[in-house]
Amino acid sequence: MGSAVLDGETVEAILREAGAMARDVLLPLDRTLDRQGARLDGQQVRTAEGHRAGYSTFAAGGWLGLSASEEVGGQALPQTIMAACQEFWHAGSMAFAMGNLLTIGAIETLHQHASADLIARYVPKLVSGEWSATMALTEPAAGSDLSEVRTRAEPAEDDSYLIRGNKIFISYGDHDLTDNIIHLVLARMPEAPAGSRGLSLFLVPKAISESDGRMIANDVRCIGLEEKLGQHGSPTCSMAFGEQGGAVGWVVGQPNRGLQAMFTMMNSARLAVAMQGVGVAERATQAAEKFAAERLQGIDSRTGRGIPIEQHPDVRRMLKAMRSMTTIARFLALSTADAIDRERKSVSASNRRTAKLQADILTPIAKGFCTQTGIDVADTAIQVHGGMGYIEETGVAQLWRDARVTSIYEGTNGIQAIDLIGRKLSGEGLSVILDLIDGFTRDAKKLALRSPESRMALSMVEDSLRHLRDCAHHITTAFAEAPGAALVTAAPFLRLAGLTIGTSFLVRAITVCEDEGQQARLGAILQFTAALVLPETMGLARLIVLNCSSELSYSDIASTGPDADARRAK
Amino acid sequence: MGSAVLDGETVEAILREAGAMARDVLLPLDRTLDRQGARLDGQQVRTAEGHRAGYSTFAAGGWLGLSASEEVGGQALPQTIMAACQEFWHAGSMAFAMGNLLTIGAIETLHQHASADLIARYVPKLVSGEWSATMALTEPAAGSDLSEVRTRAEPAEDDSYLIRGNKIFISYGDHDLTDNIIHLVLARMPEAPAGSRGLSLFLVPKAISESDGRMIANDVRCIGLEEKLGQHGSPTCSMAFGEQGGAVGWVVGQPNRGLQAMFTMMNSARLAVAMQGVGVAERATQAAEKFAAERLQGIDSRTGRGIPIEQHPDVRRMLKAMRSMTTIARFLALSTADAIDRERKSVSASNRRTAKLQADILTPIAKGFCTQTGIDVADTAIQVHGGMGYIEETGVAQLWRDARVTSIYEGTNGIQAIDLIGRKLSGEGLSVILDLIDGFTRDAKKLALRSPESRMALSMVEDSLRHLRDCAHHITTAFAEAPGAALVTAAPFLRLAGLTIGTSFLVRAITVCEDEGQQARLGAILQFTAALVLPETMGLARLIVLNCSSELSYSDIASTGPDADARRAK
Repeated sequence: MGSAVLDGETVEAILREAGAMARDVLLPLDRTLDRQGARLDGQQVRTAEGHRAGYSTFAAGGWLGLSASEEVGGQALPQTIMAACQEFWHAGSMAFAMGNLLTIGAIETLHQHASADLIARYVPKLVSGEWSATMALTEPAAGSDLSEVRTRAEPAEDDSYLIRGNKIFISYGDHDLTDNIIHLVLARMPEAPAGSRGLSLFLVPKAISESDGRMIANDVRCIGLEEKLGQHGSPTCSMAFGEQGGAVGWVVGQPNRGLQAMFTMMNSARLAVAMQGVGVAERATQAAEKFAAERLQGIDSRTGRGIPIEQHPDVRRMLKAMRSMTTIARFLALSTADAIDRERKSVSASNRRTAKLQADILTPIAKGFCTQTGIDVADTAIQVHGGMGYIEETGVAQLWRDARVTSIYEGTNGIQAIDLIGRKLSGEGLSVILDLIDGFTRDAKKLALRSPESRMALSMVEDSLRHLRDCAHHITTAFAEAPGAALVTAAPFLRLAGLTIGTSFLVRAITVCEDEGQQARLGAILQFTAALVLPETMGLARLIVLNCSSELSYSDIASTGPDADARRAK
Repeated sequence: MGSAVLDGETVEAILREAGAMARDVLLPLDRTLDRQGARLDGQQVRTAEGHRAGYSTFAAGGWLGLSASEEVGGQALPQTIMAACQEFWHAGSMAFAMGNLLTIGAIETLHQHASADLIARYVPKLVSGEWSATMALTEPAAGSDLSEVRTRAEPAEDDSYLIRGNKIFISYGDHDLTDNIIHLVLARMPEAPAGSRGLSLFLVPKAISESDGRMIANDVRCIGLEEKLGQHGSPTCSMAFGEQGGAVGWVVGQPNRGLQAMFTMMNSARLAVAMQGVGVAERATQAAEKFAAERLQGIDSRTGRGIPIEQHPDVRRMLKAMRSMTTIARFLALSTADAIDRERKSVSASNRRTAKLQADILTPIAKGFCTQTGIDVADTAIQVHGGMGYIEETGVAQLWRDARVTSIYEGTNGIQAIDLIGRKLSGEGLSVILDLIDGFTRDAKKLALRSPESRMALSMVEDSLRHLRDCAHHITTAFAEAPGAALVTAAPFLRLAGLTIGTSFLVRAITVCEDEGQQARLGAILQFTAALVLPETMGLARLIVLNCSSELSYSDIASTGPDADARRAK
């Protein structure tokens, strides 16, 4: 474990502070950010009332450098701690914390790939929060497929480049929270190969920091703000680089290897986005639990008193499933962070290598599963609130609106599933996931011996693990033969893996937990997970095996809709 | 079949006109209704630009009286035709068509339960669309549980009553589309028994229609408008009845039997809301199909041309599942309408009785399953659109926002599931659903003989039918022993029934379809349904059997959230 140097008390103190920041600073801002959003005032994006003050408080807490190395002013704490803190912040206000997620990812990316000079000039001010960062990949014709990126970079004086091109969907692309904004921009050098192997990553600041301390405005401009379903407080910008001749930028990492550098940013962002899912799920679960404890419907004939809806069986089912899903998503995401910590800090090279392969596999599963869980749990919170859930003032509808984008950005969940099957489970990956499954199966058997009351639940866990193992074999075999057909089942496979592995980490936590009360609470969640959540794995396994092994004709399926014939005739 | 007197050409002409109305009048208004919503101007709700003109065009088409009896100016067409037309209108604009749904339900309720005098004075103007209607049940303390209704009705002169009380969540409770609004209000007469057996239904007009033709303002006022997640064009009102002494109303049906009369309205509304689900699912599917055919990502190395995302396996999976779900939801809802038609028009009393029992069972399944399908398919449409799906301008986010309330109003989907298990499957109901299952199984076997290429798909259908049969036995047995525990599985059971019965009606349609092209299209949808949709039934069956038969401890499951201990300590 990378966190071996930290004692439990220190960890608890950090988490308590992170939670206090979420509760006292972010949460009170969340409604205003949704209501007021951000607006474009000439070339400048203006944020909502209180956003700037809240940001200053957050930055002053030193939170942006929590996991950054000490050389750049950070605290070098493990990813596990950072991820746990992110849950609090995203639960407090996802639209607020979205900006920080990008700065944190940029700090890591620059630290790993940029030159010493760039690091010295830009990273400490990101760590202090005086400046913030963005990730500028997407273009109108290049969404999920970055090989189509058209932004150009021409060599200029002093190792710099002149960047020209437009980017869209840039979160926090402009705002008034900080004096400078550092854009990490994917662009193409002259004569670069076509496709994604010709992309380089550039640091393009809104204002250039001269070595003498002067700041010079760069040729970077926000030319539009999106009106979105949610996350109104997080400005989503269309950015123009180099309209006036060229935005000055510097290459980060090797020329034409921009995607490799960007992967550092994306992996950091993917885990952080998984934590958005966990955070919103926790907040939605708490909101539903509170409402259901207070809202009365029906009269108890014995006492003559109103019955809280939490006692009605269907509401109970929803509450228990929300709590189960939130818990297994949290264990999955934090265990992914733990694998990253072990990859970086394990003493033995072979342990680091295994941990890296585990982190590679777990990251897309955590991103896909936890974000979908956040959306689903927020959706169920609306249902628990009944008619009140549909009223904006109640606040749970905002949770759903805010969460909805998490399954789309930082690589859609479909892309995560394809990454899992097409890249992560090929080669060594298969044996890594099979080893994980073996370990989980041993945990389940061990706990069943110790805890007879959990035996039924644990036999469900073992069933799910067996399905996951079978499906991993089926899907990798099918992928080798006919990738297209196999990838139809990629998303269901990711979900099967998320449900099963998340629950298995919960089982593991019970086996190692030393606090009896906490162990009992987790044991109760395991019961509900087995009863209400894990049965879904049976259907998923059936779907995967069926589609990977049969000769289903994926020929054209006609629309029976009123306009289909007309469209077809065109 | 109730529609025996109609030839195919007439039906097609009616549907074509209903579709044209949706396309040419409702659809162009839909965005404006969402953007402008409705506003409260003093005591008067003002609708969005164009709403009134659109309503006049719609009413002038005679659509509100499509299924009303000829005595009141209607066309006495079957419910099946009305339901099919409603799909078009809700696909065009759910917020617009929501108002009509209520007027149509009120026409039916008044025709069945009101006195001849009330019918003569009010119903023809509802049929012509000069006036509209509402359904005023909910009060702040009485949501799903109507036994808590506190609105009072005091006898007054000429068989009238004075109504005093407040109602909330009244769709189209006030607006400027018509000169009068007829409220159907649940209230309590003096000395009425407590609970739901003491409720009477009253007709309370916004303006009283005197026999000499004069109109007198009644003591009815809109005192608030909700700001909702969606359906902004449909004003959701808080209504005050009798603030100035009493709103004049007349009883509809027998005193203290208001719930029975209201059930007519609710059943009509439940089927109509199911059609909202089908309508929004169809529109979302078409939107996603169109986008996925046009949006290019990646380059085909053989042709050098962009690849439409519809060819990417994960997008393909989503599109096929959307089309499958939309189709089986449509078959389920239209077959429910058909059962209602057979209940009313079958020659033999025993056929009418069987049809009534079928309609009773199918109505909650259709309401629950089709509304959830509308929400889910709209959600998937957002995902297919990627980042564009999160931008309001694209329009698919609005579909989701508009659809989200359908699983809540007209009885939450949890209430539908409880109604299915607790009322509809007790007694005779069980054998009715078992007979349906037997018939569906025969259809599947018959089609498998005729169509060998569908054999795999049909064996999946038979598996699902077997699961549904087993679970119907399990859940009714468990309900008799421990209702609370059994009801935990009510919602999963409703979903299992919806998936299985919807698909079975699709199979039946294929077996009776005489148009070869149509048969092939439906056959292709059956393949995808079996491959991508039906596997879910395996997981649902496992969940139901597990929870109905095991000794799962539904004791308190503790929150692991940060605030849980604090809340518990209070």
